[in-house]
Amino acid sequence: GVLGSGDFARSLAVRLVCSGFKVVVGSRNPKRKASLFPAAAEVTFQAEAVKKADVIFVAIFREHYSTLCDLADVLAGKILVDVSNNTEINHHKESNAEYLASLFPACTVVKAFNVVSAWTLQSGARDGNKQVLICSNNQEAKRTIAEIAQVMGFTPVDMGCMSSACEIENIPLRLLPAWKIPIFLALGLFLCFFTYNLIRQVIHPYIREQKNKLYKIPIEVVNTTLPCVSYVMLSLVYLPGVLAACSQLYYGTKYRRFPDWLDQWLQHRKQIGLLSFFCAALHAVYSLCLPLRRSHRYLLIETAVKQAVEKKMTIWVEEEVWRMEIYISVGIIALGLLSLLAITSLPSIANSLNWREFSFIQ
Amino acid sequence: GVLGSGDFARSLAVRLVCSGFKVVVGSRNPKRKASLFPAAAEVTFQAEAVKKADVIFVAIFREHYSTLCDLADVLAGKILVDVSNNTEINHHKESNAEYLASLFPACTVVKAFNVVSAWTLQSGARDGNKQVLICSNNQEAKRTIAEIAQVMGFTPVDMGCMSSACEIENIPLRLLPAWKIPIFLALGLFLCFFTYNLIRQVIHPYIREQKNKLYKIPIEVVNTTLPCVSYVMLSLVYLPGVLAACSQLYYGTKYRRFPDWLDQWLQHRKQIGLLSFFCAALHAVYSLCLPLRRSHRYLLIETAVKQAVEKKMTIWVEEEVWRMEIYISVGIIALGLLSLLAITSLPSIANSLNWREFSFIQ
Amino acid sequence: GVLGSGDFARSLAVRLVCSGFKVVVGSRNPKRKASLFPAAAEVTFQAEAVKKADVIFVAIFREHYSTLCDLADVLAGKILVDVSNNTEINHHKESNAEYLASLFPACTVVKAFNVVSAWTLQSGARDGNKQVLICSNNQEAKRTIAEIAQVMGFTPVDMGCMSSACEIENIPLRLLPAWKIPIFLALGLFLCFFTYNLIRQVIHPYIREQKNKLYKIPIEVVNTTLPCVSYVMLSLVYLPGVLAACSQLYYGTKYRRFPDWLDQWLQHRKQIGLLSFFCAALHAVYSLCLPLRRSHRYLLIETAVKQAVEKKMTIWVEEEVWRMEIYISVGIIALGLLSLLAITSLPSIANSLNWREFSFIQ
Repeated sequence: GVLGSGDFARSLAVRLVCSGFKVVVGSRNPKRKASLFPAAAEVTFQAEAVKKADVIFVAIFREHYSTLCDLADVLAGKILVDVSNNTEINHHKESNAEYLASLFPACTVVKAFNVVSAWTLQSGARDGNKQVLICSNNQEAKRTIAEIAQVMGFTPVDMGCMSSACEIENIPLRLLPAWKIPIFLALGLFLCFFTYNLIRQVIHPYIREQKNKLYKIPIEVVNTTLPCVSYVMLSLVYLPGVLAACSQLYYGTKYRRFPDWLDQWLQHRKQIGLLSFFCAALHAVYSLCLPLRRSHRYLLIETAVKQAVEKKMTIWVEEEVWRMEIYISVGIIALGLLSLLAITSLPSIANSLNWREFSFIQ
Repeated sequence: GVLGSGDFARSLAVRLVCSGFKVVVGSRNPKRKASLFPAAAEVTFQAEAVKKADVIFVAIFREHYSTLCDLADVLAGKILVDVSNNTEINHHKESNAEYLASLFPACTVVKAFNVVSAWTLQSGARDGNKQVLICSNNQEAKRTIAEIAQVMGFTPVDMGCMSSACEIENIPLRLLPAWKIPIFLALGLFLCFFTYNLIRQVIHPYIREQKNKLYKIPIEVVNTTLPCVSYVMLSLVYLPGVLAACSQLYYGTKYRRFPDWLDQWLQHRKQIGLLSFFCAALHAVYSLCLPLRRSHRYLLIETAVKQAVEKKMTIWVEEEVWRMEIYISVGIIALGLLSLLAITSLPSIANSLNWREFSFIQ
Repeated sequence: GVLGSGDFARSLAVRLVCSGFKVVVGSRNPKRKASLFPAAAEVTFQAEAVKKADVIFVAIFREHYSTLCDLADVLAGKILVDVSNNTEINHHKESNAEYLASLFPACTVVKAFNVVSAWTLQSGARDGNKQVLICSNNQEAKRTIAEIAQVMGFTPVDMGCMSSACEIENIPLRLLPAWKIPIFLALGLFLCFFTYNLIRQVIHPYIREQKNKLYKIPIEVVNTTLPCVSYVMLSLVYLPGVLAACSQLYYGTKYRRFPDWLDQWLQHRKQIGLLSFFCAALHAVYSLCLPLRRSHRYLLIETAVKQAVEKKMTIWVEEEVWRMEIYISVGIIALGLLSLLAITSLPSIANSLNWREFSFIQ
């Protein structure tokens, strides 16, 4: 049974019908809404629908849960599936599913399907996030819903008892939480190093020798800043592992929890490492662009003209040549190795490595 | 039970035996064929095999289905699994599975396993496409086959009733259908812009000033063409969303279906976007190669020589310098952002994002 | 039931409790260890725990299996799950699971969960390798464990009977076995071509004309070596397919097994191809870095000065210009095509292609 006639209710009915279930839809105005649902689904009044079904998907907003109170008698003993989402994280004190359970103590409430979008339901599970997170205080009901999810083509994931409902309801609302700290860290480091390089390469020569080198800001200053950020970030990837080992040695046990800040840090290593790679890759592209610039061309021609006028035929400085060759070749090798690290952090590749292979590559 | 002794029949028997099923193979010449099958599988005459099995995999070509008509009596009441594929899309009027069902009305026919290759069956499901699409008019039989597929290590996907058989049979024959229109679009745009740039950069100077600039064709003309293609494609990614919103506002409802052309367009956005990124990446590589060319070197030396002979010591044009620095730095930033978009369109990463994160990045 | 109190035992207990199972932990010192386990799990003496449970996870080292012999009576008839790993490949003659089965002939032994790390168990299956490989001689017991694995959020994979235990136990110990031969091949080829290019570009000019060109070693010699390696590796990807086809034509059958060396070669094609792409990509980066070098700059200025002093105004060589333009444009196109090949070999993309699409792209 499906209560509601919104987008999600309709997609759910379509998918259930496609997967071979008998579907009855409860609506306040069955005649007007019937055309929205697939022909194989029966659309009728709410009380009727509830009577005919054992499992009832409550596809209505939390605000309207109380309108179902009239149906409390017919609902008694049935499994209610709460599929609702909120618009803000931790909007209400208790999760929608717990609120529903408190309204209908005679029903078994299961939280499920809220992480699946109406679009995924309609188009089938073939090309999207296939997991359905399920939680409930009743093991039997949870297993029933897990089986339904499986027949519909999703992978049910058991999230334990009802107290996880709040966590499950927050999942569709989260916005890259693991990336926030690493991104602000990278921006902060970038600003510091950028200011330092700006003073050194542009402001200092201007004040001391009145040379206008402002044109260096968009590329050269940025290009000397990026590898600094990249290096510091890379060291921040490996530092917490050392600190954790020290802490374990100091306390003589590996069962003691790390302090919170270290735990957080350890969990953000992957993101910090990827940002470090991103900065390194940008540095490579910026460096490769250097000879494309007009300023490079002009400086080259000016030097050549000066040499020609002064009839100096040779300007070869062996040390300078070697320094640059070695800089560049070490840079390329480092970038190649970082690329391998970045590629193995792709989920589909990381999943195919065992722990020994992963730590070998790292 | 498995009927047939081809590659697929053998791989199927191997896999079924490995997964702990008792397998009986029906062949016309059991003695000669027995050596091809694993020892644990019993190879016998077709009628014998059919009698012993409840679920029978029909691993023979559609053309030979009629040879089974002699077995109609013993087949009655059994589940027949049609695993066949065609060599052309929509080759026959009715799908193979429907044809089989019409030949044996007393049997329950299920379409399954045709999207799995013999190679995947033999090597196990660990490193390949793990989905098995199943359809049948009989829910019970469908569920039996889904359980068998699951025990064999595949993910069964319920595709509804027998009318989907035709669609399922076409899947192994499709050839990147979603890419056809975007690729022809990109080629068309490339041709138009290439012709325009060819006239502007090569033909026009030749006619007006008799200058031979043919050498510009392989790199410079292509390099000015690519970003134009990329820009137009990128705008074609975002335009249909705007059109769809306008259409919804105009009709005042979001339940009205979009016209077919708009629907198609909306569904091809990902492919158009990836081609746009591909053109942008090629443009970056072409641009970076510009200073590698001999022509660049010669022009540089010629300018230097001319300046030296005329004793002009300075050729610095502040405006030119700034224009180029800003061009390049904006280009790099744009490429970096497009790379992020392209990376998030990888299936394994897209699956780990929720809807809010995905639309934030887009 | 869980026997043991190590990291793995604790993580297993946590996960089982979270998935709604009743867990009883058997320990020799239940009072001291109780605090390590979740509150919902009962921690008691080993004999007690075994009596209360039907399925017993043996989370202790192989060396201590014999200490369980006192419990042989109470263990009789139960399902024992061997979750152990070794520290070396093929360390013992018989696998741990077979050893356990020989110690307790009255029990049903199942090998499972050894490929899952304690960390994956604790953090849930959401972000890691989700497969659990299971083998046992008893179909019923295997199915029970598969169901438990599924409820815990993992994908059980049936690996057949107990003789696969050895293979399953080696999986967490393997270290990129498919990459060893291709990597040594690439290194060998690199060394050969590097020596040849070193002699040709550095040693020969030095001996014949006493010119010091040592500075070419880090970049130019490496850069002429990489495409040679890449080409040979790419041809080694396509050669075994041709040999296999010839062998099939010669013997007139496709059912004959290929000789072992050819079989091995065919299976390493993907890795050889990816290394070929890696070399090609490095070659592209090295080439793009050429104009960044001081040596390039000095040579350019020297030529310009020489021309200016000799008042030669033109040095344009049409043939040289064309050759370079065509080299570069063909190189970019080849790199673009190889990139497409490399991208389609990512597991998540390869899985979404059918056989026809895959071979079309190849």
